[in-house]
Amino acid sequence: MPRVLVINPNSLERVTRDIDAAMAPLRQMQGFTVDVIGLPKGPPGIQSQQDVDGVVAPLLARLRTEKADAYVIACFSDPGLHAAREITGAPVFGIAESGILAALGRGSRFGIIAILQTSLARHLRYVAAMGVLDRLAGDRAIGRGVADLADAENTYTRMLATGTALRDQDGADVLVLGCAGMAGFRKRLAHDLGIPVIEPTQAAVAAAVGAVTLGW
Amino acid sequence: MPRVLVINPNSLERVTRDIDAAMAPLRQMQGFTVDVIGLPKGPPGIQSQQDVDGVVAPLLARLRTEKADAYVIACFSDPGLHAAREITGAPVFGIAESGILAALGRGSRFGIIAILQTSLARHLRYVAAMGVLDRLAGDRAIGRGVADLADAENTYTRMLATGTALRDQDGADVLVLGCAGMAGFRKRLAHDLGIPVIEPTQAAVAAAVGAVTLGW
Amino acid sequence: MPRVLVINPNSLERVTRDIDAAMAPLRQMQGFTVDVIGLPKGPPGIQSQQDVDGVVAPLLARLRTEKADAYVIACFSDPGLHAAREITGAPVFGIAESGILAALGRGSRFGIIAILQTSLARHLRYVAAMGVLDRLAGDRAIGRGVADLADAENTYTRMLATGTALRDQDGADVLVLGCAGMAGFRKRLAHDLGIPVIEPTQAAVAAAVGAVTLGW
Amino acid sequence: MPRVLVINPNSLERVTRDIDAAMAPLRQMQGFTVDVIGLPKGPPGIQSQQDVDGVVAPLLARLRTEKADAYVIACFSDPGLHAAREITGAPVFGIAESGILAALGRGSRFGIIAILQTSLARHLRYVAAMGVLDRLAGDRAIGRGVADLADAENTYTRMLATGTALRDQDGADVLVLGCAGMAGFRKRLAHDLGIPVIEPTQAAVAAAVGAVTLGW
Amino acid sequence: MPRVLVINPNSLERVTRDIDAAMAPLRQMQGFTVDVIGLPKGPPGIQSQQDVDGVVAPLLARLRTEKADAYVIACFSDPGLHAAREITGAPVFGIAESGILAALGRGSRFGIIAILQTSLARHLRYVAAMGVLDRLAGDRAIGRGVADLADAENTYTRMLATGTALRDQDGADVLVLGCAGMAGFRKRLAHDLGIPVIEPTQAAVAAAVGAVTLGW
Amino acid sequence: MPRVLVINPNSLERVTRDIDAAMAPLRQMQGFTVDVIGLPKGPPGIQSQQDVDGVVAPLLARLRTEKADAYVIACFSDPGLHAAREITGAPVFGIAESGILAALGRGSRFGIIAILQTSLARHLRYVAAMGVLDRLAGDRAIGRGVADLADAENTYTRMLATGTALRDQDGADVLVLGCAGMAGFRKRLAHDLGIPVIEPTQAAVAAAVGAVTLGW
Repeated sequence: MPRVLVINPNSLERVTRDIDAAMAPLRQMQGFTVDVIGLPKGPPGIQSQQDVDGVVAPLLARLRTEKADAYVIACFSDPGLHAAREITGAPVFGIAESGILAALGRGSRFGIIAILQTSLARHLRYVAAMGVLDRLAGDRAIGRGVADLADAENTYTRMLATGTALRDQDGADVLVLGCAGMAGFRKRLAHDLGIPVIEPTQAAVAAAVGAVTLGW
Repeated sequence: MPRVLVINPNSLERVTRDIDAAMAPLRQMQGFTVDVIGLPKGPPGIQSQQDVDGVVAPLLARLRTEKADAYVIACFSDPGLHAAREITGAPVFGIAESGILAALGRGSRFGIIAILQTSLARHLRYVAAMGVLDRLAGDRAIGRGVADLADAENTYTRMLATGTALRDQDGADVLVLGCAGMAGFRKRLAHDLGIPVIEPTQAAVAAAVGAVTLGW
Repeated sequence: MPRVLVINPNSLERVTRDIDAAMAPLRQMQGFTVDVIGLPKGPPGIQSQQDVDGVVAPLLARLRTEKADAYVIACFSDPGLHAAREITGAPVFGIAESGILAALGRGSRFGIIAILQTSLARHLRYVAAMGVLDRLAGDRAIGRGVADLADAENTYTRMLATGTALRDQDGADVLVLGCAGMAGFRKRLAHDLGIPVIEPTQAAVAAAVGAVTLGW
Repeated sequence: MPRVLVINPNSLERVTRDIDAAMAPLRQMQGFTVDVIGLPKGPPGIQSQQDVDGVVAPLLARLRTEKADAYVIACFSDPGLHAAREITGAPVFGIAESGILAALGRGSRFGIIAILQTSLARHLRYVAAMGVLDRLAGDRAIGRGVADLADAENTYTRMLATGTALRDQDGADVLVLGCAGMAGFRKRLAHDLGIPVIEPTQAAVAAAVGAVTLGW
Repeated sequence: MPRVLVINPNSLERVTRDIDAAMAPLRQMQGFTVDVIGLPKGPPGIQSQQDVDGVVAPLLARLRTEKADAYVIACFSDPGLHAAREITGAPVFGIAESGILAALGRGSRFGIIAILQTSLARHLRYVAAMGVLDRLAGDRAIGRGVADLADAENTYTRMLATGTALRDQDGADVLVLGCAGMAGFRKRLAHDLGIPVIEPTQAAVAAAVGAVTLGW
Repeated sequence: MPRVLVINPNSLERVTRDIDAAMAPLRQMQGFTVDVIGLPKGPPGIQSQQDVDGVVAPLLARLRTEKADAYVIACFSDPGLHAAREITGAPVFGIAESGILAALGRGSRFGIIAILQTSLARHLRYVAAMGVLDRLAGDRAIGRGVADLADAENTYTRMLATGTALRDQDGADVLVLGCAGMAGFRKRLAHDLGIPVIEPTQAAVAAAVGAVTLGW
């Protein structure tokens, strides 16, 4: 049975657990397994470019020890995505890339709910590198770090305000959550805003399941 | 159990059967059904802009009679995609859009294997409308209509030559098949060219399965 | 004497009459005729993508029965433009395309005054497909359907407010009216805003007159 | 009766006469006059950026002495276009801008037949400044200066070869003549290539006639 | 010893002196000389497109009389840049181009502090012609002409307000001063805003020094 | 006296020496020092994305131990550029970014001479992320790894053939060397091709010298 391996490259067990919980609906399908692992050697939240670059080495080391039919790197900066593609013949999915591609199939212009203001320039480079800048409605930060997301009510309040601004001021008709640690808020946010909200790890795993099932 | 409905908007039963056959790997998963139907009132191959525009009315009429949790329009011109999105709250996927988005997650620049030379300007408008023109390596036609695809060996010979040109002259590292009727050739072409080849109806159904499973 | 045929693809006779009236200045020239016809089988206002796609078949059927040296499709969604180009060797002009191209020759960045909020995503796809997105300053809706345009004073009040926002907040220095039914307001709006306002059916007919006169 | 003034900013009387001859079909219409004048103080052909920049002062001086309802600057580098727009409230059209906009309404991707290889970088800057680079199929030079165009047969042979390459190798389905001095070859070239060929001075005057007639 | 010649194409001696003063830090290096000259035949401030085009002839005439290893045209409209490149084998730098390129190496998205509202469309054409429009955060005018810059306090107050808007509302993280006459305000503005501010004549001369030193 | 520190992030002492030698012309200027150091812990040539990502940690560690007024990362993949910018208030320059920006000031469209075919997709992402894809004429690989560059004659033969193709087939009028290890070939290649050739470490150091001198 094909195996999709999801690796959370930060060391926060809570985030790994949240990601694992977000896999539940996909696991109701049969014919593959989805395993979610953390990276104890990773930083407690990948928030700076240093975090992004620095986590690649331990992440690749970990990937080399895990045999899978497809890999998902569950951090919205897609650390090591292209490097991982060099070391395995299996498809590798980054959650930023996958989340954005999923959004492009569900709306006209997408918005990103980022964690920190300092993430925005990095996102901009990435969306430009993907060649889809013309579809970006806006990118706004909630101003909370990865660890702060655990404070659920305050986090959600900020996410709702930020999503509302993306929808009403920037013209987004679909949103992408800009951090794997936001997974638990997706459903509520989509309900409250009335537009599709893409949880990027789910998007990446769904893409991975498709690829392994179809033999791509 | 959620239902994904795939509609082939041309009247060629052979194409409908080929699409149905291409669903086999996805059907090995559980938790959803995929039904493939044809459109007897559609044209025998959608090849011109007239075909594209003309098929929308019977296609929408058919969609209205079918209750599903997600819809896939299985023609590479994505006829009626945005109109269908108006008439249903369920997600609707076009195979051109879905195939191209899947390709963007598997390579640097994508090539399209089109059926006819007259399709190219239509594709160009569509790729530009999607905002992903900078990722298009090339679009080349095999010079055979939808009905002619039934002549498998001659079709494959042309597809291989066209795919080779896209890879070696245009720099494509992932290909998208530009017609639902080419589904049967995907695996062989991917093997012979050594790069991922996306069958767009499979891509769209995989995306639809993800969406219905995740409640997007 | 060459004939330019303008077809209003909605069934509102008032709109057809307004378009016909807007032709008066062009008819003062000699050497060609401009005929304006309606489409009784069309919808009462083309406002949704379903309207756009659904009107193509009766529109093409009507075009086939009318011999002309150039055709103008007088709906801002340019329904059937590329299909019509397939069925006739004569040039065919869409009013959205023609209006936008005319605006590009008169200003630095153009604004569109749309009818409904739901038109905006459709316009965005179209402007992107034309490859001129970088010249679009903004697209704002007056929030009134085609039939509501008959209420002239309320319509004009909304158009003026919308045009003012496009000019002052979005930086547009030329405007395009986003509906053939707005023709009667062009002159007043241009006067009040102090920037060129393009009436798209006039733009398309002027282009058609040029083409038939020059033998393009 | 409104007057459109066309000014050929080079000093070659032959080019001025050719432009004047190209106005014949437009003059068959009534309700306006088209006058074509030369610029004896201009250079014998505008071929370098120095020519382009240097001709603006005498060109503007000449324009100031001529009252008209619209102006056309008949050089494919559009010298002084934006400066002229500053000194008159009447609309001013450049033939490169107008020719390219006309082409965008007649084909999917346009090609330019340039005079000299050294023109290409200048054209590229201009097409990029217009924001329509994605629609440019190719730009190829015939390798003959403005004065050399008088040698009609050799010129046409080069134009036909160049146009064929633009159509067949670059994928252009509409061409723009990249020099006002090529006006006499338009009809023959369009016939031989089987795709629309835009003569840019005609395009600009047609646009000017439209603007003055419509009061834009 | 290689010589970099900076020419201020306006006739304001104060601006020439300010530019000269801005060269002081660069002159502390050895191995080259930087000379700054004015253009008495130039206009008192280059503010309109007429000014830009009209100054090219006297500017080129002046350049021809001055032997240098690299030339810098010290006006933010880069008048005569490409023409000057035709008449000399030595490298020629425009301050708009150089200032923008320097900014691209110091921030994610750049803002321009322009003098007049009427400059903005010209800048937009130029940034588009350079192909870097996606990196432009915003362009805002202080609403003061070149001669008015001499009123230092009022000018600085406007520059600070404009820079603040570019940083906080438009998202610029690096600024370019949009007039050579603003050189004296660079340091103070960078300090007050806390982001890099590029003085474009300094940027162009630094680029010129690099080129002559390296033999490019 | 300000110090510019250049770090070659690979472990090849020959490359470090070649970079140091390429600094000679810049060192003839006074008022700053340029120091070039290697990274013994780096890989012997940075050729894959794994190399790029993996070198960031030791590179940053090394940078932290060196006090400088500006830093230059001398590898054409600009490893750690944005991370380094986070850890120091001093400006940091990457040689790919700096080389490309220098080229944009010297030509219309630039070409890149890459080392390996596998570098091209990485370059393409980077040029897109910079937002300057429209200025890229072409990117071609010589098919030799970093270590192979030591075989000077074979390397130069390949570089000349590649540069000729970029100039004549792709239309590049300025080239950027795509590897710090190619520094020794710049002058000869520029002479033989007759167009400017940018050595990117020189470009980055020249930019760094400008920044430290000007206090940016």
